[in-house]
Amino acid sequence: MTPTVNIAVLVSGNGSNLQAIIDSVKRGEINAKIAAVVSNNPDAYALKRAESAGIPVLVLENGKFSNRREYDLALVELLRSREVSLVLLAGFMRILSEVMVSAFPYAIMNIHPALLPAFPGLHAQMQAVEYGVRFSGCTVHFVDCGTDTGPIILQAVVPVKGDDTEESLSARILVEEHRIYPEAVRLFTEGRLVVNGRRVTVSSSRNIP
Amino acid sequence: MTPTVNIAVLVSGNGSNLQAIIDSVKRGEINAKIAAVVSNNPDAYALKRAESAGIPVLVLENGKFSNRREYDLALVELLRSREVSLVLLAGFMRILSEVMVSAFPYAIMNIHPALLPAFPGLHAQMQAVEYGVRFSGCTVHFVDCGTDTGPIILQAVVPVKGDDTEESLSARILVEEHRIYPEAVRLFTEGRLVVNGRRVTVSSSRNIP
Repeated sequence: MTPTVNIAVLVSGNGSNLQAIIDSVKRGEINAKIAAVVSNNPDAYALKRAESAGIPVLVLENGKFSNRREYDLALVELLRSREVSLVLLAGFMRILSEVMVSAFPYAIMNIHPALLPAFPGLHAQMQAVEYGVRFSGCTVHFVDCGTDTGPIILQAVVPVKGDDTEESLSARILVEEHRIYPEAVRLFTEGRLVVNGRRVTVSSSRNIP
Repeated sequence: MTPTVNIAVLVSGNGSNLQAIIDSVKRGEINAKIAAVVSNNPDAYALKRAESAGIPVLVLENGKFSNRREYDLALVELLRSREVSLVLLAGFMRILSEVMVSAFPYAIMNIHPALLPAFPGLHAQMQAVEYGVRFSGCTVHFVDCGTDTGPIILQAVVPVKGDDTEESLSARILVEEHRIYPEAVRLFTEGRLVVNGRRVTVSSSRNIP
């Protein structure tokens, strides 16, 4: 019997990528349990999505902690208590400190709406439109202490059209985000992600301890 | 009768992109005349390619000029004397100064073996392999005074495979370079490139003065 991976999803807002993960787990594509959805924003719509799916929700507000380290110590404790072994950032609007990153080595993923290393940081889609690139996309990567700098797991490409706005490009990229984020989680839970320095390769065989 | 655009191609080495342009002109895909091939390296193999195609070759050696400005002043004079209206960099290993850039506004193109703004500068393919991206490609852009920073004309995407080396990725990208560089030149000669700030759009109708 394959052990089930406990996942936590960290959110701050709408949570459409959370929904994609929930749906993929429900369809049986990912052998994992979403053990908790954690938000730093008590009003995040993502919390409603979690509740609708019967997933425990937890709110850790920024203002309740004196600094990033204290916040992350509480977050690590909370995730450990739920026996979480994979953490997914899904629109979580906080930078993680070394406390979180070292507590979950190569076990925190983020999705970014650009072909990293192009257009890191906020408003990636607008950056792409303003730069005038012909292709953009999205990137699932492991989280390190930099901003969108960690090892890349999967990417997807979309065209950028001459009359694209931030909104139209964002919508086109979002379709691909909802496809590759669950796929990356599936590969992780099947033990198929092999990290070698910065390069992550996908093993063709499952490797479940 | 449509006027023919006089093109100069600037080279330093092998010149495979020069060959792709020569072949495309020969096939009648581009209504242009390659008026000169200029090299800063007297031993560039590209010069042999030009001679084989009956194109005048000119060598402007780096060491014959005291600084970049003097070099570029001579280069502008040479290009003007040949009535050149489009300058193509094809592996030309020199940074152009403001003298050249302002003499040919939006009329100098370069091809770069990466999806700019990712991996500018030298060894772009090795940068991509080492970063661990899943897609790379090439970019034709107008040249400004920065390094690979000018407005993008065309891009093409290629996958990066788990076992790629600098050589295997370079070969895959080169196929696309030889496709999009002549295509960009064709669009230029048909007057179909519309520059709006950083964004270059391709007009569906020809606009020849």
